[in-house]
Amino acid sequence: MKIHLINPNTTASMTKKIGEAAEQVASSSTKIVATNPTSGPVSIESHFDEAISAVGVLDEIRRNPDADAYIVACFGDPGLMAARELTQSPVIGIAEAAFHLATLISTRFSIVTTLGRTGIIAEHLLQSYGFSHHCRKIRAAEIPVLDLEDNSELALNKIVEECLLAKAEDDIGAIVLGCGGMADLTDEISKRVGLPVIEGVTAAVKLAESLVSLGLKTSKFGDLAYPLPKHFTGTYEYLSNK
Amino acid sequence: MKIHLINPNTTASMTKKIGEAAEQVASSSTKIVATNPTSGPVSIESHFDEAISAVGVLDEIRRNPDADAYIVACFGDPGLMAARELTQSPVIGIAEAAFHLATLISTRFSIVTTLGRTGIIAEHLLQSYGFSHHCRKIRAAEIPVLDLEDNSELALNKIVEECLLAKAEDDIGAIVLGCGGMADLTDEISKRVGLPVIEGVTAAVKLAESLVSLGLKTSKFGDLAYPLPKHFTGTYEYLSNK
Amino acid sequence: MKIHLINPNTTASMTKKIGEAAEQVASSSTKIVATNPTSGPVSIESHFDEAISAVGVLDEIRRNPDADAYIVACFGDPGLMAARELTQSPVIGIAEAAFHLATLISTRFSIVTTLGRTGIIAEHLLQSYGFSHHCRKIRAAEIPVLDLEDNSELALNKIVEECLLAKAEDDIGAIVLGCGGMADLTDEISKRVGLPVIEGVTAAVKLAESLVSLGLKTSKFGDLAYPLPKHFTGTYEYLSNK
Amino acid sequence: MKIHLINPNTTASMTKKIGEAAEQVASSSTKIVATNPTSGPVSIESHFDEAISAVGVLDEIRRNPDADAYIVACFGDPGLMAARELTQSPVIGIAEAAFHLATLISTRFSIVTTLGRTGIIAEHLLQSYGFSHHCRKIRAAEIPVLDLEDNSELALNKIVEECLLAKAEDDIGAIVLGCGGMADLTDEISKRVGLPVIEGVTAAVKLAESLVSLGLKTSKFGDLAYPLPKHFTGTYEYLSNK
Amino acid sequence: MKIHLINPNTTASMTKKIGEAAEQVASSSTKIVATNPTSGPVSIESHFDEAISAVGVLDEIRRNPDADAYIVACFGDPGLMAARELTQSPVIGIAEAAFHLATLISTRFSIVTTLGRTGIIAEHLLQSYGFSHHCRKIRAAEIPVLDLEDNSELALNKIVEECLLAKAEDDIGAIVLGCGGMADLTDEISKRVGLPVIEGVTAAVKLAESLVSLGLKTSKFGDLAYPLPKHFTGTYEYLSNK
Amino acid sequence: MKIHLINPNTTASMTKKIGEAAEQVASSSTKIVATNPTSGPVSIESHFDEAISAVGVLDEIRRNPDADAYIVACFGDPGLMAARELTQSPVIGIAEAAFHLATLISTRFSIVTTLGRTGIIAEHLLQSYGFSHHCRKIRAAEIPVLDLEDNSELALNKIVEECLLAKAEDDIGAIVLGCGGMADLTDEISKRVGLPVIEGVTAAVKLAESLVSLGLKTSKFGDLAYPLPKHFTGTYEYLSNK
Repeated sequence: MKIHLINPNTTASMTKKIGEAAEQVASSSTKIVATNPTSGPVSIESHFDEAISAVGVLDEIRRNPDADAYIVACFGDPGLMAARELTQSPVIGIAEAAFHLATLISTRFSIVTTLGRTGIIAEHLLQSYGFSHHCRKIRAAEIPVLDLEDNSELALNKIVEECLLAKAEDDIGAIVLGCGGMADLTDEISKRVGLPVIEGVTAAVKLAESLVSLGLKTSKFGDLAYPLPKHFTGTYEYLSNK
Repeated sequence: MKIHLINPNTTASMTKKIGEAAEQVASSSTKIVATNPTSGPVSIESHFDEAISAVGVLDEIRRNPDADAYIVACFGDPGLMAARELTQSPVIGIAEAAFHLATLISTRFSIVTTLGRTGIIAEHLLQSYGFSHHCRKIRAAEIPVLDLEDNSELALNKIVEECLLAKAEDDIGAIVLGCGGMADLTDEISKRVGLPVIEGVTAAVKLAESLVSLGLKTSKFGDLAYPLPKHFTGTYEYLSNK
Repeated sequence: MKIHLINPNTTASMTKKIGEAAEQVASSSTKIVATNPTSGPVSIESHFDEAISAVGVLDEIRRNPDADAYIVACFGDPGLMAARELTQSPVIGIAEAAFHLATLISTRFSIVTTLGRTGIIAEHLLQSYGFSHHCRKIRAAEIPVLDLEDNSELALNKIVEECLLAKAEDDIGAIVLGCGGMADLTDEISKRVGLPVIEGVTAAVKLAESLVSLGLKTSKFGDLAYPLPKHFTGTYEYLSNK
Repeated sequence: MKIHLINPNTTASMTKKIGEAAEQVASSSTKIVATNPTSGPVSIESHFDEAISAVGVLDEIRRNPDADAYIVACFGDPGLMAARELTQSPVIGIAEAAFHLATLISTRFSIVTTLGRTGIIAEHLLQSYGFSHHCRKIRAAEIPVLDLEDNSELALNKIVEECLLAKAEDDIGAIVLGCGGMADLTDEISKRVGLPVIEGVTAAVKLAESLVSLGLKTSKFGDLAYPLPKHFTGTYEYLSNK
Repeated sequence: MKIHLINPNTTASMTKKIGEAAEQVASSSTKIVATNPTSGPVSIESHFDEAISAVGVLDEIRRNPDADAYIVACFGDPGLMAARELTQSPVIGIAEAAFHLATLISTRFSIVTTLGRTGIIAEHLLQSYGFSHHCRKIRAAEIPVLDLEDNSELALNKIVEECLLAKAEDDIGAIVLGCGGMADLTDEISKRVGLPVIEGVTAAVKLAESLVSLGLKTSKFGDLAYPLPKHFTGTYEYLSNK
Repeated sequence: MKIHLINPNTTASMTKKIGEAAEQVASSSTKIVATNPTSGPVSIESHFDEAISAVGVLDEIRRNPDADAYIVACFGDPGLMAARELTQSPVIGIAEAAFHLATLISTRFSIVTTLGRTGIIAEHLLQSYGFSHHCRKIRAAEIPVLDLEDNSELALNKIVEECLLAKAEDDIGAIVLGCGGMADLTDEISKRVGLPVIEGVTAAVKLAESLVSLGLKTSKFGDLAYPLPKHFTGTYEYLSNK
């Protein structure tokens, strides 16, 4: 089984880190391939970054059509629905993955993310997926995403601090980490905070393996069918198939 | 990894069937133990049957405390929250499992269950879990649960018929099967209907494996903590631990 | 008119207290019979306690089939739906009763319950019944249920303290008491807090009388029809009727 | 105990009929006083009629300040919130009353009302009260309200016909009648349709009695406090109390 | 284009102020006519005031049938649905107008209104219109409405203070002002608070102009059709048209 | 005032048509500039098409930074949130515009769109914006978008047919057209169907003018602030501003 993990931003060190986190939890028979688009933002911290990154996600899927499942490893799940149209192999977003698993081991959770301004993205996803009432609060450690690479100790401390506030104040049973770049910190945070901590990259790996081993593929009947063949112009002419 | 699958009804043939369905999708390193309570209803087709069966589910967990995860294999998820209190090992209901995976491969699904009267149970679960807007319609083939054992060909035909109606009328991408007793029919139904079909027992096995391999356990902080030790009287004196 | 009030836990002193509270508000022509199961937990403070207690509730209904209405006198409404299947006489839960009446005299209320860990049970009920947006906050005095018997003065003070916080902070017009064991404290709490206080046992008595005098019975058409006759095994063989 | 029942329209024959229906279900110690405003529409079949009728409802409460409870006997509950501000005695609307009781004896119901154009009023009330998901469908017999007075046999037949459709198609356990003018038809409809039928006037009488006998009054703390004294001009100068 | 702006209260100075605010934003080809009913409350600070004022609103529309659009200039949108039945010209409430525009320039907003007791009115409107999840918090400066006339400097300061709290604590992008009487303060508040401030009167003018210039009129098909002609009695006999 | 209307697809004839529809409703002092990206899909009929088109939308805004407002003229509102981050000038999507205005002239509406597979996109928007309960049904005429250019008579007939079904069956007061390409058909459809028909392009023009003339701009406080400056790689290096 081959799972293609796509880091939607273009920071290779983060891709490597995420890939390693994925490998650590993958089954022995699962091959993890972690890539990032060559084109796009070095981090994703806004709707704008997300919109641009979605094209990179879709390109990666098209360039690597033979995976058994795909993971979109940014907490805003950029391009997820479009990705599902492109392939019959399951595609999992790390936000949805984390939400799903969190509801299986707790009744209510809080999210701890990087920047407060991205909270609205999570809020929209919670509503669309159906988990709004499972999430007590979206909290931000107010650290730029790339600080998870460059100032990881400081970043970790701020995240832990926010998690401890969530534990004390939010009436929750678990924490969801709101950024793929935190994938390597899960165990440490959980230890320091004393709560189950659900992180999306690792969660998504297991959900992807689950679907593949059950033979469940994205439905091609109805609204996730392959995109209709059509002409694209300019930069995107390579997407034309008509 | 040991997953203890509990069939909440007391029909051994169904337990066996469900267990086999679970084994077929389990990882090679997963040991499936399938049991049913010695006391309880032979099938679950009402809130009443469900309430009685919940005690059996809880007894099975207490009698088998060393599993890495538990599955409650009746589509009403009887006793699920109570079961989560009893153990730190994850406990998965087959209704929730099916709902979760269905939303990963389709945008909207319909449920096809046995008896129409149990639809309200699924409706309550959908609301509580957050999936109401993902489910277009709850349909019933109007077959008693045990017909899945005794008149399986007839039952299969009726289920397929209802699934085809769902496909034609409900604007959906997938079908969720609404009874653990249908676990062996998934492939056949999917083939005949031409839609992804999600069945809860097999879905739950993979979610249980997922949580275990991630080291995620039911949160014991807050509302799913172990029940407070106390005295029980009469028939239930064996539950006293104070 | 005979109303059978079932205290789902097995603490006789609480049954007596609840029965007396019921009698004080019952019409002169109403006979209150208050019993508790012989088997079950001495208090209900978790999903687990609740699941076990549900069987006792159902047994009490079956053993006393001639009441005109039944009340399930624990704030989690354990076994309510199953109880409604067993009899055509109306069955009222005290949580639902309190919620219903609270919305008739205030626009928004808060709940003050015993232990914080049971808040999630009330939260699920609010959602299922439709009252989520009427309830501003679920608060806990953090007292064990049986302290209402054994340390009633201390318990009362803690409850009043929490009610006063609710009055000051929650933007509410009324308080709902979250435990049947508080039935005798309603007036005192209301006096000290200066708000209408709705308590479920007394509320349920009046709702039960209301339905009976209107000739309204639980619908036996559809999903609350009598359970299908079937075989039960082991401890529950006495429930077999096939 | 005195319950003042206000028919918000000015058709005396309907007031009499509603009053009689109320008396038939009232406790022997309850005195029903049924009046209607002298000013207002002869029937209520639109938002406009409702807005005008609300003033009459409020006038009736002010003119009759000594009742223990009030009932607003039009299915749109006109002026309900304003009425609650005017008095500490409980005020019950017949739509809310019917919804509340319906959820106690069925899991899902349909409404059968007079004119389709008033369905939106019921829809708004269901949402505000929290019962949207308990109501499967709002159906109209398409009869003018006053046909319940003048062509009662024809009206009855049309209502029964619509109720039978609801029973056959809506997956419900009970019917809520959507007009105060149907108060005398409840038993006949229930008999012909074979379902519990909940009618708001009678339901409201019992809820009003319930609150009064529990000593529960409209909260005067917060948003239902007495209106602030102030000047009114023109036609409404009689409302000035400053 | 003539827009008839109705101040539902009878304070002429407020009508003048609101009318001037409307004129300042109206297109050069739009004629604003601002009136208030001769009968009704001098300010609207409760459900009761609102119910009475609704009649005045409807009278104003009937007396001035030739406007191209109407605005109901009180934040509770009193009589809005009834007003829409009376005329095919669009009718806009200032609460809805403010909510609509607020969601176009921010993802989440808070409301700052006059008295806390009116918050529930806004809460009901948010739910009915669909904006509950866009509004983080309803805040009150706790100033009587007429203080906006008589103590405008003090009132302004209190409003600004509350707005600054909203900015600091509510995780919002914009403020909605919750009273028509604040129409002349918008710019000053926005400047002092440093957030976009949406005020309903001015918002409604632009929405009214929008609908008129698009030729969009209130649908007369279905539930907003003209009220059925019928007899009114007493004070309201002038409304009879049968 | 300059409104920049962006057709997110690259079909110039559609851009022209949409631009003309916009000009017809624009104020005399408004200058409409209608463009489409040079790169992207010729029509938008899937999540995939939409994801790609979002980049073009954002490019158009960046290339034309001096408009007073922007309109995203595809019914899926592609890139809307990201667009709002890029500029302080208001950005309006045509789906949201149509929904907003539809709720001002009717209580419930249905959508008639091109292809059924895009219904889910509208469904997600309705939920996010808050209009789910205002929309009775999403209907599709099952015509490809470009048939609106190439087979406009046939397309019109199919749309009208579906609208008539909506009128007959959906209990609605208005129709929302679900594609920017229908902008020139609004009047004809409305005439043939006998219902108010709301079309998003024209609606968006008026909403854009409304915001501009009120001086309301997208909030730059909080989650719609300008994107943080950062490095983009490859194809998107031109977006780097760090």
